[in-house]
Amino acid sequence: MTYCCGILVRGGLVMIADTRTNAGLDNISTFRKLHVFEQPGERVMMLATAGNLSVTQGAVTLLAEGLENPETHEIERLVDAPGMLEAAQLVGRAVRRSHAMAGEGAEDSGVSFDVSLLFGGQIGSGPLRLFMVYTAGNFIECTQDTPYLQIGEHKYGKPILDRAVSFDTDVLDALKIGLISMDSTIRSNLSVGLPVDIALLRRDTLRTDVSTRIDGSDPYFRDLRESWSRALRAAHIAIPAPPYGGAR
Amino acid sequence: MTYCCGILVRGGLVMIADTRTNAGLDNISTFRKLHVFEQPGERVMMLATAGNLSVTQGAVTLLAEGLENPETHEIERLVDAPGMLEAAQLVGRAVRRSHAMAGEGAEDSGVSFDVSLLFGGQIGSGPLRLFMVYTAGNFIECTQDTPYLQIGEHKYGKPILDRAVSFDTDVLDALKIGLISMDSTIRSNLSVGLPVDIALLRRDTLRTDVSTRIDGSDPYFRDLRESWSRALRAAHIAIPAPPYGGAR
Repeated sequence: MTYCCGILVRGGLVMIADTRTNAGLDNISTFRKLHVFEQPGERVMMLATAGNLSVTQGAVTLLAEGLENPETHEIERLVDAPGMLEAAQLVGRAVRRSHAMAGEGAEDSGVSFDVSLLFGGQIGSGPLRLFMVYTAGNFIECTQDTPYLQIGEHKYGKPILDRAVSFDTDVLDALKIGLISMDSTIRSNLSVGLPVDIALLRRDTLRTDVSTRIDGSDPYFRDLRESWSRALRAAHIAIPAPPYGGAR
Repeated sequence: MTYCCGILVRGGLVMIADTRTNAGLDNISTFRKLHVFEQPGERVMMLATAGNLSVTQGAVTLLAEGLENPETHEIERLVDAPGMLEAAQLVGRAVRRSHAMAGEGAEDSGVSFDVSLLFGGQIGSGPLRLFMVYTAGNFIECTQDTPYLQIGEHKYGKPILDRAVSFDTDVLDALKIGLISMDSTIRSNLSVGLPVDIALLRRDTLRTDVSTRIDGSDPYFRDLRESWSRALRAAHIAIPAPPYGGAR
């Protein structure tokens, strides 16, 4: 499995993705699932993928190398899209195309070829946007009401996002909360694992502020994990014992 | 959906279950999913149910009223079981029987008739035990390595259990942590809702210490929710900002 989240706040966009893939429990590998398409000063687009790896890799390749528009017969690449909406539509078409290519054998195999993607970024003077793209190529857009989107094993890491993130959260705090959400998922689900790729794009800068990989030896992430565990322990110890029932 | 968890620690057994059921998103009701079978001084057994309500209600009815043992042709009821293992086997047979009764129309309808149950308690001088029973009637037993079992929407509430519960946790603390786990689930998933039924059985007492229902007006649970939210906020604010990327 996979866990990725994207957080869109006033100050910018954060994307976080783990790197664990598995074909069965006994075939576990590390693959990059967070892809950054950047032309500094012009556009930054980030793509995080979950689901069938052959379909998502195929889609990423199509987006980089170009796929033919069935109406205009032009070859379209992500780096040529005039705006984020057109780029999201292109991501949807690439997913559909890649799914169709992989999907001929899908029904026979019993394997799920479903995927989901987070796609966010900013092009020129257009708005900073974040989308979730489904297997069918359709997508939804992140809004201020719920300033995050998740794909993959999203449940373990959702409570902290629900409680801690709002559109006015500082963008570095959003990254921090996203890392806590990722840590909660990694601890409770073997199919999500380190290293973690992170990217941060501040609004209207058109160049990534952060684009790096965090592994188990990263001192900040190690401190964050320990601090968070300690704080959770302290938090539940500080709550008084339940008043129900007889004397202790 | 449903969320139930059972926690088995040195001091005793805690069971917690929400009460929300839904047939589609527009048909939401409140049903008891935590059932206590108690003969004070002799036996206390607790049963929490998740999954198809017609199957679980049928199983509970069979367990209370008795079902025929196909080998001995005797009518067996839960309150007559000589030990917890035999009782768990009886729960498994009741589930299979109820599933078979409901299941004739299941394949046509496309509805899932799967269920899962938590079953725990103590009979006479026997050990205090906790089991998870599946649709097929088979079951697993909770051990000291992981002193809790969950059914239903288990992912949101798992991180706190993974971090905070061990076999040596005090039984009232286990109840408190179970309530935090339930609160995390209720906040992040609409299909799990108040009121919550709780039961607590101290080891070797053979009578429930707590068996009550908590609703939104319960002052302790309200304080717990607020304290926990406040503590989580304080905890993530106390963690320093990530060091990655350029100047702020």
